[in-house]
Amino acid sequence: MPFFLGLDFGTESVRALIVDSRGREHGVAISKYRHGVIDRNLPGYDTPLPPRHAHQHPLDWIDSAARATRAAIRNAGAEPRHIAGIGSDFTSCTMLPVKADGTPLCLLRESSSEPQAWPKLWKHHAAQAQTDRLNRIARERREPFLKRYGGIIGLEWLLPKILETLELAPRIHHAADLWIEAGDWFVWQLTGTLARSTCQAGYKGLWSAADGYPGDDFLRAIHPGLANLAAGKLSGPLIPPGHPAGALTPAMAKKFGLPAGVAVSASIIDAHAGVPGSGAAGSGTLVMVMGTSSCHMLNSPEERDIPGIAGVVKDGILPGFHGYETGQAAVGDAFDWLRRLAGRRDFTALDEEAAALPPGADGVRCLDWLNGCRTPLMDGSLHGAFTGLSLHHGPAHLYRALMEASACGLRWIVELLRDGGLAVNRFIATGGLPHHNPLLVQIYADILGQPIVVPPTKQGPALGSAILGALAAGAFPSASTAIAAMALQKRAATIFKPTPKSRRSSDNLYTDYRRLAQNLRSSI
Amino acid sequence: MPFFLGLDFGTESVRALIVDSRGREHGVAISKYRHGVIDRNLPGYDTPLPPRHAHQHPLDWIDSAARATRAAIRNAGAEPRHIAGIGSDFTSCTMLPVKADGTPLCLLRESSSEPQAWPKLWKHHAAQAQTDRLNRIARERREPFLKRYGGIIGLEWLLPKILETLELAPRIHHAADLWIEAGDWFVWQLTGTLARSTCQAGYKGLWSAADGYPGDDFLRAIHPGLANLAAGKLSGPLIPPGHPAGALTPAMAKKFGLPAGVAVSASIIDAHAGVPGSGAAGSGTLVMVMGTSSCHMLNSPEERDIPGIAGVVKDGILPGFHGYETGQAAVGDAFDWLRRLAGRRDFTALDEEAAALPPGADGVRCLDWLNGCRTPLMDGSLHGAFTGLSLHHGPAHLYRALMEASACGLRWIVELLRDGGLAVNRFIATGGLPHHNPLLVQIYADILGQPIVVPPTKQGPALGSAILGALAAGAFPSASTAIAAMALQKRAATIFKPTPKSRRSSDNLYTDYRRLAQNLRSSI
Repeated sequence: MPFFLGLDFGTESVRALIVDSRGREHGVAISKYRHGVIDRNLPGYDTPLPPRHAHQHPLDWIDSAARATRAAIRNAGAEPRHIAGIGSDFTSCTMLPVKADGTPLCLLRESSSEPQAWPKLWKHHAAQAQTDRLNRIARERREPFLKRYGGIIGLEWLLPKILETLELAPRIHHAADLWIEAGDWFVWQLTGTLARSTCQAGYKGLWSAADGYPGDDFLRAIHPGLANLAAGKLSGPLIPPGHPAGALTPAMAKKFGLPAGVAVSASIIDAHAGVPGSGAAGSGTLVMVMGTSSCHMLNSPEERDIPGIAGVVKDGILPGFHGYETGQAAVGDAFDWLRRLAGRRDFTALDEEAAALPPGADGVRCLDWLNGCRTPLMDGSLHGAFTGLSLHHGPAHLYRALMEASACGLRWIVELLRDGGLAVNRFIATGGLPHHNPLLVQIYADILGQPIVVPPTKQGPALGSAILGALAAGAFPSASTAIAAMALQKRAATIFKPTPKSRRSSDNLYTDYRRLAQNLRSSI
Repeated sequence: MPFFLGLDFGTESVRALIVDSRGREHGVAISKYRHGVIDRNLPGYDTPLPPRHAHQHPLDWIDSAARATRAAIRNAGAEPRHIAGIGSDFTSCTMLPVKADGTPLCLLRESSSEPQAWPKLWKHHAAQAQTDRLNRIARERREPFLKRYGGIIGLEWLLPKILETLELAPRIHHAADLWIEAGDWFVWQLTGTLARSTCQAGYKGLWSAADGYPGDDFLRAIHPGLANLAAGKLSGPLIPPGHPAGALTPAMAKKFGLPAGVAVSASIIDAHAGVPGSGAAGSGTLVMVMGTSSCHMLNSPEERDIPGIAGVVKDGILPGFHGYETGQAAVGDAFDWLRRLAGRRDFTALDEEAAALPPGADGVRCLDWLNGCRTPLMDGSLHGAFTGLSLHHGPAHLYRALMEASACGLRWIVELLRDGGLAVNRFIATGGLPHHNPLLVQIYADILGQPIVVPPTKQGPALGSAILGALAAGAFPSASTAIAAMALQKRAATIFKPTPKSRRSSDNLYTDYRRLAQNLRSSI
């Protein structure tokens, strides 16, 4: 029986998963990036980075992926020659400027000291002014692409990040032959062939199969230096996830301990890989990929314009559906922020104390916008808040209030989708958090008033990537058969049902949340 | 040369100070109350106390005061027989029900399990409903006493606390022969003679020399059980601080290691003792007594009705002036809350980190209402908040924001007094905090835009009490001569001047604070 490799590139580390064609997990390994998130100073330089910068080192991705792959194969006790397909998912929009041969500009001596030459991580938030201008001009020109993105271009997306470099370090922009998503760059390194994923391009690059990238008139109105972007620095074939992007080169085969020639799927955004990975093959299921940040995805046969969603891409997640993406910008990140604020080493005591508190955290209320608000406000410049504080409140009150705020943020998203005419009738929670933090899933179920299914696998996106690897290898005739075979395993999922008595307190908490969001948005 | 003993009763401990008639400090000692603040369960009982309760044990006051006095005399190397006068200040309104002989009801077997029989500490906040009703009815009846208190009866004052007992435990109210301030009860224990301080009665008991206590019509409208309160359970002679309330009894002399017959001054509120203690003998000086909470006092020859002040009492602080009291409900308490929230053992690192941050705490804003808002909103049910939070903020950002909020709260008070027509042209900071936390005083100076004087003594209120002891002993012909002799010492005071460049950022922070107060007050 063949094995498939799924590589899941997160913010801090990459995870490698070896599964067979029935989705059984044989081996897994995680490898942290040597340089982690680069937000203080560039490697080899002492100069502090400007605020809101977040970079990564491109060689970390290759090195960590190779290390994790070798370890996962070892853990699986698998024969490398049985690996028949590779899929990978990646944070997005994480992007970098490269030469025509794929060499990252940050690795060239003449540009290694320039922050704009380095890969910008999804959470690089320094392009606020550029985002504002892009949005203003797109609105003024009534650009048709806007309606696919809830009317708003996100701070974390491709064009703001490119424009930031063009304005602050034009030399770097001009020296770049291509701008590329990190996920696509990784696949290119594996295969030796440039291919871009329709997923990243669709959700983060303002591209659609029908209309392509934004037109040159718009781009020139933004900045003359952006003209010809689509045919130039964004050129390259666009391939859907699950389709083969190429075959593993001998050099990379050696580095990864794999046979050369293995089929490699086009890349997919990390969260989006969680949809096949969690077994969601149809419409109406909200797949919540919960980690550092959260991405909530919904497939629907309907095409609707919904203000404030992060994006809708036809065939963007599963063939035959419109894939709607929404998100919350700080989830695990926010909990970890609170843990650090409280000077705690881990969550053990905080979890226990928060679970013992009644709904409402004894009056503490929170806005979970510690990294801005993604859906529905799409505003990275917003900030978080705690209110209702008294001297008898401790860290667990703030922690519970933060979890409740996160749940209210999710309910707002669900109401938005339903108000927009989409059915949302099933909830799957995947990603790292649901297994670590059952209290959080229970709070989500209570505040949504809906049961939430947590699939047994802790490797949702990695499994989704392995499924894409299997599809690229031609192991299944269709995505739905692959998902049915590999992700709908017989092992029982955990179901969190809403606490019967929680309805009224949940409604009150949600009302408070919306009012606080309204009040603080209009003040500070 | 004679010595004088000043006893300063705080929330957690009592401080004893031995000074001579030139104000030189010869010995000091602090003794913590054995039971501290009783807010979980009554001594000897397991039943948890209701929320917002805060009690103390009356024997702790005697025991700790005796212990501290003996230690201070020892530290001073003084002969007990040279102690010529005793003054004491006390938190207020801290009050208790007693029998006609002074026995506290909480010490009687039949009522020791009833929380309402125990002394209620100033920060006992369980009488919100009673406060609301008192205010509503007083406003409806246009009670003339209201204008002396900024139009509002405070949650922490005497009548709400009495009414709470009458409603929740009428048996206790009826069993009490007298309701009495803890400071007056302590003086009574020293002298064997009941006397009430005009200071406590004036600022916390709605009493004035001209009009006495609120009239029986008003009290009956509140509750029939309150009729005849002034002539009954609040009866007893009213004596100004600095006047002799009696002489030390032989029994207490033995307990305290002092000669019998020493003159004992009438009690004063702890913060108010800071006015003579800091050398403020005239008008226009705002004396800020900064500790667990802060009390800001101003003397003025003018009588003005200022909405939102805590109280104005003729001759309430110094003879010949109208004494205006304003306050902030959580200062040191709030900083300590933040320290605990951050899991820190002490303030060392927090102070350093906060000092290194620029004004504005990198965008974090705070409302310092962690124990409600005293001046100008007089609403104990309000709560604190932090806004502007991002993932890169740590405890020091919140700490700095909290200090800046405290400074903005003070600026609001100063503007209120000036808008009301009073001169405020000099600022003295005393109490425990200014010596521990110079960064806080600097932030206050920056945000006020005014220099702040910190007198060298760390014993402001205790020194003030000792001055009252000297006055009670007849050692000086007048308060101003006593203050001049004992508190205006030659030792240099520290002066914190506003940072020249801070004006604009201070104005912006203050604008943000007022807007946040407005927005949050109208939301949650």
